[in-house]
Amino acid sequence: RRSHMAVSYTDPQVSMDLLRAVLQPSFNDDIMAVFRKYQKLFEKAAENVKENVGDDIQTDLLIRETCRNALEHAKQLFPEGEAKRAGSEAAIKRSRAADEDYS
Amino acid sequence: RRSHMAVSYTDPQVSMDLLRAVLQPSFNDDIMAVFRKYQKLFEKAAENVKENVGDDIQTDLLIRETCRNALEHAKQLFPEGEAKRAGSEAAIKRSRAADEDYS
Repeated sequence: RRSHMAVSYTDPQVSMDLLRAVLQPSFNDDIMAVFRKYQKLFEKAAENVKENVGDDIQTDLLIRETCRNALEHAKQLFPEGEAKRAGSEAAIKRSRAADEDYS
Repeated sequence: RRSHMAVSYTDPQVSMDLLRAVLQPSFNDDIMAVFRKYQKLFEKAAENVKENVGDDIQTDLLIRETCRNALEHAKQLFPEGEAKRAGSEAAIKRSRAADEDYS
């Protein structure tokens, strides 16, 4: 009622995001396991920064920002900017699927 | 020269981001390994959406958007909003460190 369109359960991204939300806790556990591999490196680097720059550095905040940045950059693994190429790929797939329908 | 302040190599976040950039390829491999666990679920969900909504759904784009959303939500593992609490924690740590200096 608040917006012109109600949220539709047939909205593709809404459906996918429901699945994403269900999987997120498990996914977060996996992500934390990955970060644990790098935790000591991050801690050493942050301590080094603190030594060089000054005691008022909050290493935990610095490490958390670095982790968020790593997640942000990891999004490049899943680019959104290839709509045209993906579109033509999808068109090829549709065309193949149509071929299969006729075979 | 473009901005008032040159980028400083003693900028704490710049130093940490250099490390982040060095580790990013390895981190990305780990992230991809995590996503591979969920890939089939995402594919099934996207195929299901496509069946329900229509053939013009590009499942690969839908899945990639879902992956980016999962990474975005994972940032909540590393909250930035606790500056005050973290600040007081850091203050406590500094105070303890100072105590140790005198012991």
